[in-house]
Amino acid sequence: MSRQPEHPALMIPGPIEFDDAVLQSMSHYSESHVGPGFVATFGETLTMLRKLFQTTDPASQPYVISGSGTLGWDIVAANLVEPGEDVLVLTTGYFSDGFADCFKAYGGNVTQLRAPVGERPQLPEIEKALKEKKYKMITVTHVDTSTGVLSELKDLSALVRKVSPETLLVVDGVCSVACEEIQFDEWKLDGVVTASQKAIGCPAGLSISMFSGRAIEAFQNRKTPVAAYFASMKNWTHIMQNYEAKKPSYFATPSPQLVHALHTALTQILAKPLSERFARHREVSDRVKKTITELGLKQVAAKPEDQAHGMTAIYLPEGIKATDILPILAKKGVVWAGGIHKEIAPKYVRFGHMGVSVMDPSRPEVDKALKALKDGLVENGYKA
Amino acid sequence: MSRQPEHPALMIPGPIEFDDAVLQSMSHYSESHVGPGFVATFGETLTMLRKLFQTTDPASQPYVISGSGTLGWDIVAANLVEPGEDVLVLTTGYFSDGFADCFKAYGGNVTQLRAPVGERPQLPEIEKALKEKKYKMITVTHVDTSTGVLSELKDLSALVRKVSPETLLVVDGVCSVACEEIQFDEWKLDGVVTASQKAIGCPAGLSISMFSGRAIEAFQNRKTPVAAYFASMKNWTHIMQNYEAKKPSYFATPSPQLVHALHTALTQILAKPLSERFARHREVSDRVKKTITELGLKQVAAKPEDQAHGMTAIYLPEGIKATDILPILAKKGVVWAGGIHKEIAPKYVRFGHMGVSVMDPSRPEVDKALKALKDGLVENGYKA
Repeated sequence: MSRQPEHPALMIPGPIEFDDAVLQSMSHYSESHVGPGFVATFGETLTMLRKLFQTTDPASQPYVISGSGTLGWDIVAANLVEPGEDVLVLTTGYFSDGFADCFKAYGGNVTQLRAPVGERPQLPEIEKALKEKKYKMITVTHVDTSTGVLSELKDLSALVRKVSPETLLVVDGVCSVACEEIQFDEWKLDGVVTASQKAIGCPAGLSISMFSGRAIEAFQNRKTPVAAYFASMKNWTHIMQNYEAKKPSYFATPSPQLVHALHTALTQILAKPLSERFARHREVSDRVKKTITELGLKQVAAKPEDQAHGMTAIYLPEGIKATDILPILAKKGVVWAGGIHKEIAPKYVRFGHMGVSVMDPSRPEVDKALKALKDGLVENGYKA
Repeated sequence: MSRQPEHPALMIPGPIEFDDAVLQSMSHYSESHVGPGFVATFGETLTMLRKLFQTTDPASQPYVISGSGTLGWDIVAANLVEPGEDVLVLTTGYFSDGFADCFKAYGGNVTQLRAPVGERPQLPEIEKALKEKKYKMITVTHVDTSTGVLSELKDLSALVRKVSPETLLVVDGVCSVACEEIQFDEWKLDGVVTASQKAIGCPAGLSISMFSGRAIEAFQNRKTPVAAYFASMKNWTHIMQNYEAKKPSYFATPSPQLVHALHTALTQILAKPLSERFARHREVSDRVKKTITELGLKQVAAKPEDQAHGMTAIYLPEGIKATDILPILAKKGVVWAGGIHKEIAPKYVRFGHMGVSVMDPSRPEVDKALKALKDGLVENGYKA
């Protein structure tokens, strides 16, 4: 059981409920950002990220920078793509559209391969697109938080390496890192950007990313200067390398409290095999999806192979809107999220089931959320 | 007395020591970034910032964005200056040079008016520079954290308005907001950028800024699109306006924990008249400077009118290096910062005296720090 004061269970797809020890780390007394204590904490945090991303290649480079997950898009778009270069954005919802907008802001020439709502682009069409034009980069939203659509990375990477081996493969892992399997080295990924407040289970405020040696080389071989400052890899790469080598270093002041919380969260995650963590998220997700189906409800991600394991986007029954059911769930002590995909927004709700609510068997939130939905629908006159 | 565990007193010019209640707010249970509770907290926080900056003009716009203070430079350089436009950067140390580099990254045409180490550019030379070229913007580092040099804003603003009224005046207030007087409206400032972890007394991780209606208009009248995404005012302005109007709104996930801590810090600051706060910082600063002088030591900022009130940069006696004295101070339970101005780095140390250590009479840190310096120097064979 949590020692936190009684509060509504936050079951949105991030920020999520936090573990007591993680939250306590946020109150760590003040430390110098270049003092030996914090330098060690930050250095260990970066090294732990290598384990979470399953990379042992010393050329891989982790970054932890104050900001939201969105800043990760800027890091990719400002550093790894030069103005006028082509980017193929596999599009599964609101967040893929956002990533595309970010590339455009930095002058990237974006092609979006758009799947129907609730689906993802398929390998044959991706192959066709890759053969039509030489792309500097292809991006995929591993789990699009707006639809709960899960994209497949392993076969996608194999395809890209076969058809267009020089193309960098970058993953938006904001809603997948620490709840979906990601094998950075094995799947030959060039970049994964994520945030602290989803399955990693640390409060919001950190952009977290991992880039391959190939991606760093692409940055180093740029023909044009990076047109950004805070998001420039030029300013951050040696800082991250110094912290990991336990050497004090300064570009901009990191957040010691958030880094302490991230250190605690990663220590907890890595205390057990990652395979167990991913299996547990699949198991709970299966239970959620089964209950939803038994209630007679459909998911936005229709096909089982397209369904994320840390969240579920659920179509509401005909005649019930998100604005009807969300306040009822809130009264039952459970906070869910409304829809944000513009084509279907009022018709669906989103349920986050990741991190401590899934991994800590003493936490009752997932069952409480499912019961609240069932009771809420019945009270609204719905019969499954 | 602080209820925090015993730890070395952090007396660097940011991050500073934090108040217990502020640190406790960092452990706030998880809330939705678009739920009514957090929306109210964020909205109140933005409104309190107007009071801190002493602006009642409804056209003024506060921003609170996850990031470090450095992100504030990007917000200014990416949004308010277009590529090829001229910027005059008044330069008093390391941080003015950084601001200049940031403008260059975004294509600004930078002229630096450079003062000798420990001084600041004088009004007649600024007037001359403003008459030589039409500048889109002039920037000033209110307190350069590398030298402890305080710049004067009121007469500077009057000069700019007289000589070049269209030029925007933007202040880097990272090391001055909440310890030096800033009258945003009265002094006709167009922008002040700062960070959470200095005199405001909230842990690091938030970029905090205020822009005038004139600055917002300059942004709206741009001829070229903003070449940034996370730092783009286009993406954030309506979000900030919505939060302040207590309406949920989403661009990128803010950090509820950091915003709660900022809310607590601002509530404490505004519980007393700001004039008392600034007077108290001046009083403690005078005591620090007097002690330093009595010890026979010189400040980097030689002239009293150029000396900041929230920090002091102190030349060490001949023969004693920063790397000698800092570990001795650390053993005595006090953390000071080394020098970072490249021309004089090993020869001086920096002492931060701002926020709770100054305002809370039960906090012993300032006296402890002064005693540690005196004892440390004596132990090193120094005789005043």
